[in-house]
Amino acid sequence: MQLLETTFWSAGGSRHGMAEQLGFSKSKTNALIAGLVEQGLLAEAGLQRSSGGRRPENLQLHAGLGVVVGIDIGATSVDVAVLGPDLAVLAHHGEPADVREGPGVVLARVRVLVRELLSRAGFAPRQVIGIGIGVPGPVNFEIGQLVNPPLMPAWDSFSIRDYLREEYAAPVFVDNDVNLMALGELWRLRRSLTNFLVIKVGTGIGCGIVCHGEVYRGAAGSAGDVGHICVDQEGPRCHCGNLGCVEVMAAGPAITRMAVEAAMAGESAALAECLRAQGRIDAIDVGEASRAGDASANAIVQRAGSLIGQMLASIVNFFNPSHVFIGGGITRIGPLFLAAVRQSVYQRSLALSTRHLEIQYTPLGAQAGLIGAGALAMHETLKVRGVAP
Amino acid sequence: MQLLETTFWSAGGSRHGMAEQLGFSKSKTNALIAGLVEQGLLAEAGLQRSSGGRRPENLQLHAGLGVVVGIDIGATSVDVAVLGPDLAVLAHHGEPADVREGPGVVLARVRVLVRELLSRAGFAPRQVIGIGIGVPGPVNFEIGQLVNPPLMPAWDSFSIRDYLREEYAAPVFVDNDVNLMALGELWRLRRSLTNFLVIKVGTGIGCGIVCHGEVYRGAAGSAGDVGHICVDQEGPRCHCGNLGCVEVMAAGPAITRMAVEAAMAGESAALAECLRAQGRIDAIDVGEASRAGDASANAIVQRAGSLIGQMLASIVNFFNPSHVFIGGGITRIGPLFLAAVRQSVYQRSLALSTRHLEIQYTPLGAQAGLIGAGALAMHETLKVRGVAP
Repeated sequence: MQLLETTFWSAGGSRHGMAEQLGFSKSKTNALIAGLVEQGLLAEAGLQRSSGGRRPENLQLHAGLGVVVGIDIGATSVDVAVLGPDLAVLAHHGEPADVREGPGVVLARVRVLVRELLSRAGFAPRQVIGIGIGVPGPVNFEIGQLVNPPLMPAWDSFSIRDYLREEYAAPVFVDNDVNLMALGELWRLRRSLTNFLVIKVGTGIGCGIVCHGEVYRGAAGSAGDVGHICVDQEGPRCHCGNLGCVEVMAAGPAITRMAVEAAMAGESAALAECLRAQGRIDAIDVGEASRAGDASANAIVQRAGSLIGQMLASIVNFFNPSHVFIGGGITRIGPLFLAAVRQSVYQRSLALSTRHLEIQYTPLGAQAGLIGAGALAMHETLKVRGVAP
Repeated sequence: MQLLETTFWSAGGSRHGMAEQLGFSKSKTNALIAGLVEQGLLAEAGLQRSSGGRRPENLQLHAGLGVVVGIDIGATSVDVAVLGPDLAVLAHHGEPADVREGPGVVLARVRVLVRELLSRAGFAPRQVIGIGIGVPGPVNFEIGQLVNPPLMPAWDSFSIRDYLREEYAAPVFVDNDVNLMALGELWRLRRSLTNFLVIKVGTGIGCGIVCHGEVYRGAAGSAGDVGHICVDQEGPRCHCGNLGCVEVMAAGPAITRMAVEAAMAGESAALAECLRAQGRIDAIDVGEASRAGDASANAIVQRAGSLIGQMLASIVNFFNPSHVFIGGGITRIGPLFLAAVRQSVYQRSLALSTRHLEIQYTPLGAQAGLIGAGALAMHETLKVRGVAP
């Protein structure tokens, strides 16, 4: 099992590298590999360039191992994908959704989508070996349930796992959406970075933490809940009860609110026109106006970036990550936001913490959550399944 | 080597438990143990109570293994101890010191103290198997040097390791003082807690982080540098250049400054009397006045605790630790400080993060740094020494 896991994380390692990573002898490794190849779990894939002698074959998980299902539930959207053992997306569908409608409505739709996508990709339900789901709230990872989720109260203590198990024999793993974005990036990086953060800015603000090469979930599973860090003690009241939380001042709804205020106050012709034409303004409209040079939109984007950077500065001083990746809807707002975040962090954090710090948008982009859900499903399935050895 | 390390961390495990922890067979474990006992590295210590059959012996590191030296350099003090393999303190001496005098002065004195303490405990220099040192600044752990330490600029890039190696053949390990307090508590707990923080409040404010059961030092070794987290954007300017850092507003010197101001403004007879009698007021005097019911001293203690709690609330939301241990000089100020910290954290952190959160003074107290320095020396020495197997 260790060997399959190692293969999954190294994505095509050589026999020799595998033996080294596992600390096994060459002959033991070769015997294990032969067994797994015979069982149809591992495949030899072409030849690796070598400096001479007999060329070691690259190894990869066998496509016949089955598929995993990745589900990324956002506050206002749902994405479902069928992925191969190498996390190639074999079929994908995303659509708007409202988590506040509760697990019954949302998961019924998810179930339909999974069925459709499996059929489209040409797989039967029994070929699903694992299901990974990300949800926008705090999760008790062991039991796979949300715990007091502020954005989706109807989901509290609902067993997503049991619901999906009715249809699939495969194990179901549930995690917070940002943890999965972090896991997705960790897999993409093949663990070449071991201490980094993923910040998701959308309806809320959350943070996925990778520490010592593993996703860190905290003592009670709520690690990374950075949306309620205070950035202004005299700021507006947040739904959590406190004043000046970064979420209430700088997440998607705050950007929208600032834009509507600017439009109504006659401070921005572009935003006013947008409000008139659509009846509403969203964060992407603000980004567009900003890129078109609207001063008011620029000020809003900079204010949001600066507040998020101020929160991040505290976190960077504390955690000293090598990289901060920013994802979620905010990434579509454009480069000015990122520049404002960076400026704020570099100004407020200690020199030693920022000397080699990289702050950028998530390389996996909008797919980070889905790839993470797939990675969770593969990783945990390979850990729990009793496949020899 | 693994077996000695496991013994060090488990402090007297049984043969059976040892085999289980290492994943070795009973016979392999017994053979390894026999070898180590023969080499005088491991000792069998009494019998463990058992439900029947042959009683398994408890194991511990052999006292003849040698001793380690623990050195805890604070901003205004230095502590040196000689410790046995079980971290029992065999000899200890602490005295005031001023790190600003530079490494030459401070380490020359340390060298004298080590010599004296070894002689007092009856050990020769060659019996020292490892030396662990904690310093109050950011450390590059790999090379054992301070990097841009704000409290002790003269130490920048000075090789403490090379200096002490002139006299001792044993390996020398240098770490940040708060990391060592965290390591000390982790050892005391035998890793029974895996995600916790140690906050040191003295001349500065720092934080040691234990994550996944290991001390976490960050990408550049500056993790836990929480003293410069902003708690008031309109607060006084800190030596780091920013406004309202928690360190400039709530650490020892800030408490002293607030007390002198209160004394001069005639707000507190007790503090004024203290200032008159001593010519100065330190944090402990403020604690004494507070315990005696002085309203002004109470307000100062509460203000410091509340500001530190505000900084901690952000960290707790982000990291979701199971425990926060507070150490350093501040612990002598009394229970009101701890109460103020707790109130501030519970008010500002999310319910899920604080539901099972414990905030208390460091159980190892003033010895946390020394025990940590000893634990570092033992742990790293057992890792690097080429003792079979």
